[in-house]
Amino acid sequence: MINKLIDNIKNTNAPIVVGLDPMLKFIPEHLKASAYKEYGETLEGAAEAVWQFNKGIIDAVYDLIPAVKPQIAMYEQFGLAGLNVFKKTIDYCKEKDLVVIGDIKRGDIGTTSEAYAVGHLGKVWVGSNSYYGFDEDFVTVNPYLGSDGINPFINVCKEEKKGIFVLVKTSNKSSGEFQDQKLSEADNRPLYEIVGQQVDKWGKDCMGNGYSYVGAVVGATYPEQGKMLRSLMPNTYILVPGYGAQGGKGEDLKHFFNKDGLGAIINSSRGIIAAYTNDKYAKYGEKNFADASRAAVLDMRKDILENAL
Amino acid sequence: MINKLIDNIKNTNAPIVVGLDPMLKFIPEHLKASAYKEYGETLEGAAEAVWQFNKGIIDAVYDLIPAVKPQIAMYEQFGLAGLNVFKKTIDYCKEKDLVVIGDIKRGDIGTTSEAYAVGHLGKVWVGSNSYYGFDEDFVTVNPYLGSDGINPFINVCKEEKKGIFVLVKTSNKSSGEFQDQKLSEADNRPLYEIVGQQVDKWGKDCMGNGYSYVGAVVGATYPEQGKMLRSLMPNTYILVPGYGAQGGKGEDLKHFFNKDGLGAIINSSRGIIAAYTNDKYAKYGEKNFADASRAAVLDMRKDILENAL
Repeated sequence: MINKLIDNIKNTNAPIVVGLDPMLKFIPEHLKASAYKEYGETLEGAAEAVWQFNKGIIDAVYDLIPAVKPQIAMYEQFGLAGLNVFKKTIDYCKEKDLVVIGDIKRGDIGTTSEAYAVGHLGKVWVGSNSYYGFDEDFVTVNPYLGSDGINPFINVCKEEKKGIFVLVKTSNKSSGEFQDQKLSEADNRPLYEIVGQQVDKWGKDCMGNGYSYVGAVVGATYPEQGKMLRSLMPNTYILVPGYGAQGGKGEDLKHFFNKDGLGAIINSSRGIIAAYTNDKYAKYGEKNFADASRAAVLDMRKDILENAL
Repeated sequence: MINKLIDNIKNTNAPIVVGLDPMLKFIPEHLKASAYKEYGETLEGAAEAVWQFNKGIIDAVYDLIPAVKPQIAMYEQFGLAGLNVFKKTIDYCKEKDLVVIGDIKRGDIGTTSEAYAVGHLGKVWVGSNSYYGFDEDFVTVNPYLGSDGINPFINVCKEEKKGIFVLVKTSNKSSGEFQDQKLSEADNRPLYEIVGQQVDKWGKDCMGNGYSYVGAVVGATYPEQGKMLRSLMPNTYILVPGYGAQGGKGEDLKHFFNKDGLGAIINSSRGIIAAYTNDKYAKYGEKNFADASRAAVLDMRKDILENAL
């Protein structure tokens, strides 16, 4: 799947992933009104509004981008109705030949990690039948529990030809609280560096064509750390959140890429899906939210191609 | 909810939580046969078997214990059908007046953490209506992303009078890979100590009667570390996994408790729910799996009361 991700990136000339993190407050009133008319102001109504919103955006941008990253929390908050739309969104994106990165940040140990892995990337057995669960192509994974938590995911990735992105240095302000702690036994290097080193090691046995299917998450908001991690993990694909709404700019991304122009894929969520609420794209109007998203993708691609690559 | 947890512990004289982590291979054949007869070897069939298994165990042990800890991964692997039974299990346990600790190990940032918090502990708004989601009493949370990830949970806890348990030192073998890294700026103290210190700090503003509703997870398999963390976080309730199947014994738990006999609640999952597969309880037979679970709870209580308290 890492090979397919790279092919998609080359074909679109856009190292961009659109984060499908729909909050109700970003969904245009006319979509909510029509969903609530059908299902009431219920969880099903909210889920339907989310679905119509996602569909509008996917239809408008799928030809421009290699991948999407639905954030499961935004669906899980609406219970089963929400998770049903999470699945529907995954299936729809795959029909459009997009690579789907489930932003699930799961992480546990042993059989529990295995259950998450089969539920999201693989198939679960019931008697003599097997079923694919949410069936994302990649998922994000939290490393705090160590190899016991990561290996079950890697095993399923091997079997299913899928991949993971391990949180290394996250984009948020307080990410330094633990991730930046300097380690005495590692010559004062920070924790995230040791995690990065481990990601590189996990990836050695998981190579596609040039890049491994054990990727890393490193925030655009930390360009210096990105530069260091890029050289520390030369064969690791880096998923970069924090561009746009969180403050990261095209020029900050320069060192996240390798000399081959590959090695990084930049996420934007709110900056794309809620573009119509941004003054810059206000001319499209709420009804044409999807056109605003398309314009924002084109601008983001331009910014990255001109300033980062 | 921390006060209710403590009341339940006092009333049952059992600082025990039963982990409802049903793997299909632990579920007695007759339950699977009857579920598959009704629903086929499908996700719904698996979910029904899980539900009948859980119900049998809860009915057999609820009067002996203060709390249960369903592990969401074991349900999530069966997709929506599984998550439906996760919710059904939570509701059923609450009817029995048990405190429900959702072992979800979520952790993200900002609005995303908030979405997990409202989806699991609080209520989500749809137009002018609000809905409780999975509605656990406590959930486990991963600290890797720092305060940005924890604060949204704490805010919902304040509003809903609920609580969290933050992963500090997990019970698995490779937990040391990152959690035990020695920090130079903290005089060679390990990362988990800094996380523990932060849990104590987060908890200061979140006090119930004597204990805070920001708890910690510390594995029974690391008794020395447990002792240190106990004194570092005097008002923190510690959720202790790793007893039984993972190797932790009653005497290992001594220092997880405070002098008041409180401050820790010990989890056993497989040791209780799959007790009938253990030679010690083989006499009950597979059909009487729930009686074997009851006997295992009584033995666990005896071990803890005699050797740890």
